[in-house]
Amino acid sequence: MSEGARVWLVPDGFIPEESSGSQESHEAICVLNTSEEEARLSISFYFEERESIKDVEVVVPPERTLHLRTDRLEGVEIPRGVPYAVRVASSIPVVVQHSRMDTTQPALSLMSTMAYSVVR
Amino acid sequence: MSEGARVWLVPDGFIPEESSGSQESHEAICVLNTSEEEARLSISFYFEERESIKDVEVVVPPERTLHLRTDRLEGVEIPRGVPYAVRVASSIPVVVQHSRMDTTQPALSLMSTMAYSVVR
Amino acid sequence: MSEGARVWLVPDGFIPEESSGSQESHEAICVLNTSEEEARLSISFYFEERESIKDVEVVVPPERTLHLRTDRLEGVEIPRGVPYAVRVASSIPVVVQHSRMDTTQPALSLMSTMAYSVVR
Amino acid sequence: MSEGARVWLVPDGFIPEESSGSQESHEAICVLNTSEEEARLSISFYFEERESIKDVEVVVPPERTLHLRTDRLEGVEIPRGVPYAVRVASSIPVVVQHSRMDTTQPALSLMSTMAYSVVR
Repeated sequence: MSEGARVWLVPDGFIPEESSGSQESHEAICVLNTSEEEARLSISFYFEERESIKDVEVVVPPERTLHLRTDRLEGVEIPRGVPYAVRVASSIPVVVQHSRMDTTQPALSLMSTMAYSVVR
Repeated sequence: MSEGARVWLVPDGFIPEESSGSQESHEAICVLNTSEEEARLSISFYFEERESIKDVEVVVPPERTLHLRTDRLEGVEIPRGVPYAVRVASSIPVVVQHSRMDTTQPALSLMSTMAYSVVR
Repeated sequence: MSEGARVWLVPDGFIPEESSGSQESHEAICVLNTSEEEARLSISFYFEERESIKDVEVVVPPERTLHLRTDRLEGVEIPRGVPYAVRVASSIPVVVQHSRMDTTQPALSLMSTMAYSVVR
Repeated sequence: MSEGARVWLVPDGFIPEESSGSQESHEAICVLNTSEEEARLSISFYFEERESIKDVEVVVPPERTLHLRTDRLEGVEIPRGVPYAVRVASSIPVVVQHSRMDTTQPALSLMSTMAYSVVR
């Protein structure tokens, strides 16, 4: 059983430049793979005024979730303070949610939305 | 009339370790059953680096909502400070929304998203 | 042109008991009617341990939005501090979003989600 | 490859009147165009008690995102402190998300939701 969709899009990505208190401002691409196979993801990042970063590869093991921080990607740096967007393609259906923690001002704030699924 | 879907997925679960002020950090799986039958739910929890917890059973009576705190489940402990994900299967169509209250820093923060429906 | 769906569901309703600062804790059922006809809504409220409140009637004029506070309904009182859920049925397709402002602690918090659409 | 939908609706728009701290209260319509063509958008704004503002035109270049602040539109002023709603029509499929930052009280708050897609 492989549940979800194979392509997911998130228009509103933004990693705040500043942090305060015990928590760092960050975003996470959260993926759920309920199947018994691993899901091989290819993630692309889109910007307003620069070229895209394409095909960052990540694996989600069978029956596992992955909460992938976009400020801690291996070999790729998403700049802080710059609007971006995300496209996740997966080898098998998964589900993708995108969340932000903003600690620019004292007292953190959260937002989250399910990504938009394109291909079932 | 039974409205919604029978399988729902939520990738971004996380119960913050710390709380402050009058509110405790928590998450709730919110279910609406608009039908005249009870909905028998089977809830599974997925993690990043440990085995899943499967088939926690909960009932939502006819024409009722249930806001189920994931830090107060009977017989099951979802650890705080650890990413997790949720799969809700229901005997009849229902609707599922997932919300977090984070009170790590003084001043609470909320986030919420409708779960992703797999089977109509 | 009438856009959206005719039945919408929101599992996570909750009007916080306390407020602080300049803003009052509240929730709003936000409706958009892009058509040239009025939309006649029938709204029902579901609870965990009490009978539902059914068929509260509201009109959204043509080409208008309505942000309906659930703590200011005419002739109906949704109790504060109690989980509830919402079902919106409309005479023509509309779009429904549900938002909460929580000012329990100093510094407000917001959450919002598109409602779940049942009948197109 | 053009991904998403051509018409998107957001019922809950609201630009808070007040701001505090380093951030200004604002909302953004966030669009992702993953195709190799430009997307020509026509955006309309609906209110509770005034006429709509129709057909504000914006372009999203190929393989780019646009985070459009609704308080900084050219030639159009969306009033602060007034409920509004948004309809985005696009010449090609795109994805639309809508987010609010509220800094009325010290400590900002965020909310976000994917818009509702009408025409695939």
